[in-house]
Amino acid sequence: MINRLYDTSLSLLTDLYQLTMAYGYWKSGKAEQQAVFNLYFRKHPFGGGFTVACGLSSAISYLNEYGFSTKDIKYLRTLTGSDGQPLFEEDFLEYLKNLSFQCDVYAVPEGTVVFPNEPLLRITGPILQCQLLETPLLNLINFQTLIATKAARMRLVAPHDALLEFGLRRAQGPDGGMTASRAAYIGGFDATSNVLAGKLYGIPVKGTHAHSWVMSFEDELTAFETYARYLPNNVTLLVDTYDTIKGVKNAIVVGEQLRARGHDLGGIRLDSGDLAYLSIEARKLLDAAGFENTSIVASNDLDEYIMASLKNQGAKINVWGVGTKLVTAYDQPALGGVYKLSAFKNGKGEWENKVKLSEQTIKTSTPGIQQVRRYRNEKGFVADMIFDVRNVQEPEKVTMIDPYDFTRHRTFNANHAYEDLLQPIFSAGKQTYEIPPIEETKLRVQQQLAQLHEGIRRFVNPHTYPVGLEKNLFDAKTALILKLRGGE
Amino acid sequence: MINRLYDTSLSLLTDLYQLTMAYGYWKSGKAEQQAVFNLYFRKHPFGGGFTVACGLSSAISYLNEYGFSTKDIKYLRTLTGSDGQPLFEEDFLEYLKNLSFQCDVYAVPEGTVVFPNEPLLRITGPILQCQLLETPLLNLINFQTLIATKAARMRLVAPHDALLEFGLRRAQGPDGGMTASRAAYIGGFDATSNVLAGKLYGIPVKGTHAHSWVMSFEDELTAFETYARYLPNNVTLLVDTYDTIKGVKNAIVVGEQLRARGHDLGGIRLDSGDLAYLSIEARKLLDAAGFENTSIVASNDLDEYIMASLKNQGAKINVWGVGTKLVTAYDQPALGGVYKLSAFKNGKGEWENKVKLSEQTIKTSTPGIQQVRRYRNEKGFVADMIFDVRNVQEPEKVTMIDPYDFTRHRTFNANHAYEDLLQPIFSAGKQTYEIPPIEETKLRVQQQLAQLHEGIRRFVNPHTYPVGLEKNLFDAKTALILKLRGGE
Repeated sequence: MINRLYDTSLSLLTDLYQLTMAYGYWKSGKAEQQAVFNLYFRKHPFGGGFTVACGLSSAISYLNEYGFSTKDIKYLRTLTGSDGQPLFEEDFLEYLKNLSFQCDVYAVPEGTVVFPNEPLLRITGPILQCQLLETPLLNLINFQTLIATKAARMRLVAPHDALLEFGLRRAQGPDGGMTASRAAYIGGFDATSNVLAGKLYGIPVKGTHAHSWVMSFEDELTAFETYARYLPNNVTLLVDTYDTIKGVKNAIVVGEQLRARGHDLGGIRLDSGDLAYLSIEARKLLDAAGFENTSIVASNDLDEYIMASLKNQGAKINVWGVGTKLVTAYDQPALGGVYKLSAFKNGKGEWENKVKLSEQTIKTSTPGIQQVRRYRNEKGFVADMIFDVRNVQEPEKVTMIDPYDFTRHRTFNANHAYEDLLQPIFSAGKQTYEIPPIEETKLRVQQQLAQLHEGIRRFVNPHTYPVGLEKNLFDAKTALILKLRGGE
Repeated sequence: MINRLYDTSLSLLTDLYQLTMAYGYWKSGKAEQQAVFNLYFRKHPFGGGFTVACGLSSAISYLNEYGFSTKDIKYLRTLTGSDGQPLFEEDFLEYLKNLSFQCDVYAVPEGTVVFPNEPLLRITGPILQCQLLETPLLNLINFQTLIATKAARMRLVAPHDALLEFGLRRAQGPDGGMTASRAAYIGGFDATSNVLAGKLYGIPVKGTHAHSWVMSFEDELTAFETYARYLPNNVTLLVDTYDTIKGVKNAIVVGEQLRARGHDLGGIRLDSGDLAYLSIEARKLLDAAGFENTSIVASNDLDEYIMASLKNQGAKINVWGVGTKLVTAYDQPALGGVYKLSAFKNGKGEWENKVKLSEQTIKTSTPGIQQVRRYRNEKGFVADMIFDVRNVQEPEKVTMIDPYDFTRHRTFNANHAYEDLLQPIFSAGKQTYEIPPIEETKLRVQQQLAQLHEGIRRFVNPHTYPVGLEKNLFDAKTALILKLRGGE
């Protein structure tokens, strides 16, 4: 998706400190020592109870094209330190130039519901490579996950309505818009207004006309008639340019003309004013004139809260055009995903667990080579357990512990059904995973959400889905923290 | 900047309704009638008193490459309406394929401070072309203006400190990050961590190491020593991996080693905990050890409010690393810029003024072919007056009227100094404007801000800078609104 962005290699789409650290690893002979990093977030966005993973396809494209161009190297050669001397020596630049991606990657498929502290992606490989990839992987996965989650929340509010994404003009740049169109579709939207997203991703595109169309004619009725004459199979008339109720009446006149010619009035659109009141009045007028199947489309700074409120007020809206609040994730425009070292192979070839301490408990990372086991019963998902693939209890009796309250345990036995969420994506730098078609990913989101208890899907004060650490991993983490704090 | 984004023509980076309207204009013989559209916003972002225009360079690149490719046309041919029939007829697609950009564009230079309702960009040309460009122009200018403004606010809080943009990992996609890096630099930042932005835009890049560097060593001191050994001219040590105060002490040990080898300790970085307390304690320790010139860098979800609060608390931070809150404009992640038809040449070749009414007065647009006159005195900018270039009072006595309170007038005479803000950018589709170097644009922002009264720069409850309509334009607008409302 981001191929050829800026007509340049994207390997420099990273923070400078990744490169200075890479240089330090290389100088100290550690560049090729194996490391494990996990990409995860600590808190659901929007105060919600679930998050929808998205962005893996872009990450795969990025990794497949990884490598430094001659121009990249030339630019790096120009960077200097405080004394005006080059930051990097020539042999290191040569090393970068010859670098080819060699890591193993495991990841949760796009469209999976995920929870705090679960790795969405785990990468194992030379520490130099893993380090350089931190920034682009976070950039690609943070934003798409955020938007897919926002879209899924809106879909939950309006399960049977049509949802259209209209956000391109207010998105954070062209790619902000393109990426949001795709992630919104995956999260549950039906179509986008963004024609390039339609072309590149095969997403349905929708749209009819704006105020300027109406304003370019002598009067609204002429504008509607003209539109309907030339695009009779795509007529949703925007009725609020001058006076909404008059606009609806004009739309009905045109609807009758359309019918006389064998077509129909697809919809009317409200873009300002009291959407509850106006939609109810418009529905009455349309129904009275025999246009019971004409849709009422609403737009104007909608989000899941306003949609829910309008529904509670009995608004007769069955098509929702959502822009700014969706494509920028307005109430929380960034997911705080992080990427942390959890294991490192020492000079003797032994894995050492790694943890980052913090005065804020929530910021202390989890060590090990992690996998996520999702237990389920006939009603749906029950709990997720993070474990270390090298050291997990026998399935006869597995205890998991709440990382924020070590007195809360949960036990599973061999009869409990489960699946492990992280799937192999790259092996030694070669892609082994086939990206599913977008329609399959979109369907996966709805199937996953259906497995969650209603209280977890609720978007105000949701119930917390249980995520714990498998006991061996919990113990390993505790021991490591105590050791690191022990010096005090 | 967005050239070759997605390795495709970007002419479909627009809303479908722009294309259906274009088709309607073409079918009804109006496609080439001249129209005037203005791009403007209605309210400053972040509750502020000013906005910094940005994004024109990207818009110029976009317009220079405008045109539909064979693939674009092929895709448009596949679009169908509700009856399964094509939306567009073949002759229209042929028309699009042969379309070349022919408009006149006037715009405010990047880095200019601007105010609500002032056109940032005015485009005149065939209505079909102006219409198609609405979405991409808004996308490019809305976001960049938002970020340049956010950055300028942060610069005002810390006029003498170094400001570093660290946001790539949390930005809204790769282009969200790239664009933010450039706009933040223009708005007042000194450098970015984004290496690709450094390469493509010539912005200084900065950065040293992360927690993972420290975690990959047996202990913090070894990690610091190793870093300082190999990158002695770029040493800012992150001291909070395990225990911040101990980290500062370790940094001092390494600083002494550096000095013994003829280098110095550039800085320490705090990334968690109480930044006020820790920076004060770190400053004491550093000063006591003779490291008075070592910088204290702080990061961790900073924005202009937290920066101001830290300064009020006496924090000893002189370098600020700002990420998420800047690059996503977290507290208001979209600028509500709009693009409205203000004049249209009728079939007889006469310009007709156009206005969009709204039940919300603030949403009623202004008609005419607009220019913005900025009056100034020896202290700085005094007021901005929007006027119609075809009908402006003689300079001996010019009255401007507050559009939201018609009893508030202001008069200027021929002695008042002024400049007109909108400059010619394209003439009949050919670029006539030379984009200034980024350093010049960056400087312009600070020069412009210096012309604003302190009360307008204040970021809590700022004073409102006066923007009015020239009397003739005010009268024309009023008459047009009354005419449109007259039918009631």
